[in-house]
Amino acid sequence: MADNTVNEQHPATEQWGQFEFRLNGPADGNPYEDNRFGARFSLQHRMIEVDGFYDGDGQYVVRFMPDTLGEWSFTTISSVPELDARTGSFTCIAPTHGNHGPVRVSRTYHFAYADGKPFFPVGTTAYVWNHQGRELEEQTLESLKQAPFNKIRMCVFPKHYDYNLHEPEHCAFEGSLETGFDLTRFNPRFWRHLEQRLTELQDLGIEADLILLHPYDRWGFAKMTREQDHRYLRYAMARLASFRNIWWSLANEYDLMFEKTMDDWDAIFHLIQQHDPYQHLRSIHNWQHPEIHYRNNQHWYDHGKPWVTHASIQHADLHFVTEWRQQYRKPIVVDECRYEGNINHGWGNITAEKMVECFWKGMAQGGYVTHGETYTHPENIIWWSHGGTLHGQSAERIAFLRRIMEQGPQLDTSDVPFHWDTEAGGAAGEYYLVYFGDSRPSFRELKLDESNTFTIDLIDTWNMTVERLPGEYSGAFRIPLPGKPYYALRIIRKPS
Amino acid sequence: MADNTVNEQHPATEQWGQFEFRLNGPADGNPYEDNRFGARFSLQHRMIEVDGFYDGDGQYVVRFMPDTLGEWSFTTISSVPELDARTGSFTCIAPTHGNHGPVRVSRTYHFAYADGKPFFPVGTTAYVWNHQGRELEEQTLESLKQAPFNKIRMCVFPKHYDYNLHEPEHCAFEGSLETGFDLTRFNPRFWRHLEQRLTELQDLGIEADLILLHPYDRWGFAKMTREQDHRYLRYAMARLASFRNIWWSLANEYDLMFEKTMDDWDAIFHLIQQHDPYQHLRSIHNWQHPEIHYRNNQHWYDHGKPWVTHASIQHADLHFVTEWRQQYRKPIVVDECRYEGNINHGWGNITAEKMVECFWKGMAQGGYVTHGETYTHPENIIWWSHGGTLHGQSAERIAFLRRIMEQGPQLDTSDVPFHWDTEAGGAAGEYYLVYFGDSRPSFRELKLDESNTFTIDLIDTWNMTVERLPGEYSGAFRIPLPGKPYYALRIIRKPS
Repeated sequence: MADNTVNEQHPATEQWGQFEFRLNGPADGNPYEDNRFGARFSLQHRMIEVDGFYDGDGQYVVRFMPDTLGEWSFTTISSVPELDARTGSFTCIAPTHGNHGPVRVSRTYHFAYADGKPFFPVGTTAYVWNHQGRELEEQTLESLKQAPFNKIRMCVFPKHYDYNLHEPEHCAFEGSLETGFDLTRFNPRFWRHLEQRLTELQDLGIEADLILLHPYDRWGFAKMTREQDHRYLRYAMARLASFRNIWWSLANEYDLMFEKTMDDWDAIFHLIQQHDPYQHLRSIHNWQHPEIHYRNNQHWYDHGKPWVTHASIQHADLHFVTEWRQQYRKPIVVDECRYEGNINHGWGNITAEKMVECFWKGMAQGGYVTHGETYTHPENIIWWSHGGTLHGQSAERIAFLRRIMEQGPQLDTSDVPFHWDTEAGGAAGEYYLVYFGDSRPSFRELKLDESNTFTIDLIDTWNMTVERLPGEYSGAFRIPLPGKPYYALRIIRKPS
Repeated sequence: MADNTVNEQHPATEQWGQFEFRLNGPADGNPYEDNRFGARFSLQHRMIEVDGFYDGDGQYVVRFMPDTLGEWSFTTISSVPELDARTGSFTCIAPTHGNHGPVRVSRTYHFAYADGKPFFPVGTTAYVWNHQGRELEEQTLESLKQAPFNKIRMCVFPKHYDYNLHEPEHCAFEGSLETGFDLTRFNPRFWRHLEQRLTELQDLGIEADLILLHPYDRWGFAKMTREQDHRYLRYAMARLASFRNIWWSLANEYDLMFEKTMDDWDAIFHLIQQHDPYQHLRSIHNWQHPEIHYRNNQHWYDHGKPWVTHASIQHADLHFVTEWRQQYRKPIVVDECRYEGNINHGWGNITAEKMVECFWKGMAQGGYVTHGETYTHPENIIWWSHGGTLHGQSAERIAFLRRIMEQGPQLDTSDVPFHWDTEAGGAAGEYYLVYFGDSRPSFRELKLDESNTFTIDLIDTWNMTVERLPGEYSGAFRIPLPGKPYYALRIIRKPS
């Protein structure tokens, strides 16, 4: 026992970086099941207990993401005497450039990094890019480096679906499709690979909206028992919660997982709430539109429940963003609204114009939208699922929109009515973004606060130009417009 | 009294033509109010009683639209002895070319002329074209001669609204805006003018969807009492019901006529049902979408009521046509879904592409759609209200669609599922029309009845081409598609 109390000093870790501590221990039996391992991290009056995990080969690991500068100490807790009560310490130092900490909800409907920098999620979707093997995965990372996306929807488990029939190299559990999986034993090689990809995303400034469960499955991962789910999720949290760029998405299209009840989803939310020491963002993503649920006497998972941090919604009509904001009083992220592409499926054949329109509609209302791309490909490498390269025309327009959003404030519902055929958001009296979509008035009569003056920019959202309109505007006025689709106005109060 | 019984023989009248009989009578007092006048028309066992009307200058008139060939006789009925019990007769002869009789509901969701010829309504909107003076009205008729429209939405009363501020030449009542109107005395010059325009529409094969009341008013016609409404409507029916091309639209945007209750609308439907001997089509047209009514604890006028012949709906989203068919079990006519144009108002600035898309979406589902056009004009002559000339690009595409519709059967909801991103209708096993809208799959997997073979036409709805795809199709197959918006498929069973 004496050895255990030696306090080792470990290398410094930056704020919101990842501290890791490894010990050798028993490899016999089922170490995933049999041996409890974790640690308590302390700084002054604070104590944070985190779960550790077994990483194979007799390795027991605990990871920790410190949120405060200073001298942290820790003590391990284990059911195995040789792993228990080991102590150590490390210094948490200032974050390096590009590290703003994890993303949190901010101002009810929006997001910000832990250091206060506003975060405007501009997501994309590549469900199983991390299951495609080295060459394609590296190509995906290269594409992401050039792309405007700062959030990616991706799955832990592989996907079984049209265009997705290859067997993945590794799965989260020990075993294979042929031999069956041992759902009590994890596959460290899989998890290390996933962690490598999460780190690479982090280096690119991309949040990983990690989908923990999904229905498209031939391996049995979609039909695990509650106990199996919870074992898996605790392991995932022990390994991954210390990545600052993690968001927990409980499921993609939860309402296609017919074995699970609303109680099951509640229980999973509770589990994550209890075991994620950092309280990363938590959401759940639907398949059906609410109207269809309603007709079947069902309803969406209630995003108003307190453990849901933001509404992750699939819906093709962005018009409802304002209504959802009012309903849930949380950030609204439309994480699927059909994808730019030309495949056979209805959800994957909209034009780039429509994809860009969805982004503008959603974001002008103070919501957020996620991209996806589904062009046919001779080898069936489709961005939406496999990653690879982008072939469409929406991404660069989304980049243009992202720049405009990041230049302005996070948007509230506009206090000025800009007519029902627009989507408009603003910061009362200061700033308005008014998007016309495919409406194309040749002029408009507007009315702004007459005690202030404003400048107005005409934005061609498709051709990506911003033109400052001549003059200054105040009170009621008439403004000429191009009479073509896909324009927006940016109205900014002049400093007095 | 003896003179009255002389049976005069009048000129022959064609079936569904208009027989008219005039008498001189008292002009003193208020003949509109004081003197009852009408007639009973008889053929064999049938007797039809119709209201007559006072036409000014001591003239009492009764009109009748015979529906059966043969020798009709009639006897007048009047509270004025000299107008009472006058008799006469005429021969009803076969209809001339182009006269198919009035339009009726046919096959639950559709329409047909009285002679059985199917009628596919392809409407347009020119609310007060008949209030614009001779020159412009004649230009409108000239435009209609070239246009694809066989139904026009038009008002009895003038319109007070943005772009509509001129005083009309005549109103339905005696008086003027300055002096006020005597709502117990009609203005025969106005009515004769309206009748001339109705006749000219009839000559062009155009049904007049005549809007009896509407909210856009500075003359007081929108705020008449129930008694005044009913007096006006009985007069209108006495004059106009014998026009075979009349449809009664109780109101445009009834839900903006805040003085009227649902009871008032019911009473008007009852009145029309009672006094229109020919039972012309009857409908009522809303302003708000039903969702908004619902939020205000209100609802649409219930088109399911037995006296409503078809649902006349304003809604921007044609996707709901199938749902409305199921709900009302009546023909669905989307009589406003925003207009092609570029004016400031949201309802008047959609692209031609979108207007055409609305038509295809609605008609592929076995519904019907109405056109309107709202381009800015140096003299504010805008088709939607004033008529004049058409400036847009949708009308010729609507003409193309009309030809395709008239070549095929009236459409039921498709029994073959063509995927949710299409709108599809058909005649089970025989014929399918599948519209892709702005979805743009590059191929599709379809499944048709394997015991039959089909030909498939690829229709470019925007460029107006029809291309017969090579080969014949049966059972399950994959079909290449252009991967561009605005295509449709027409699938026709080959005769065995």
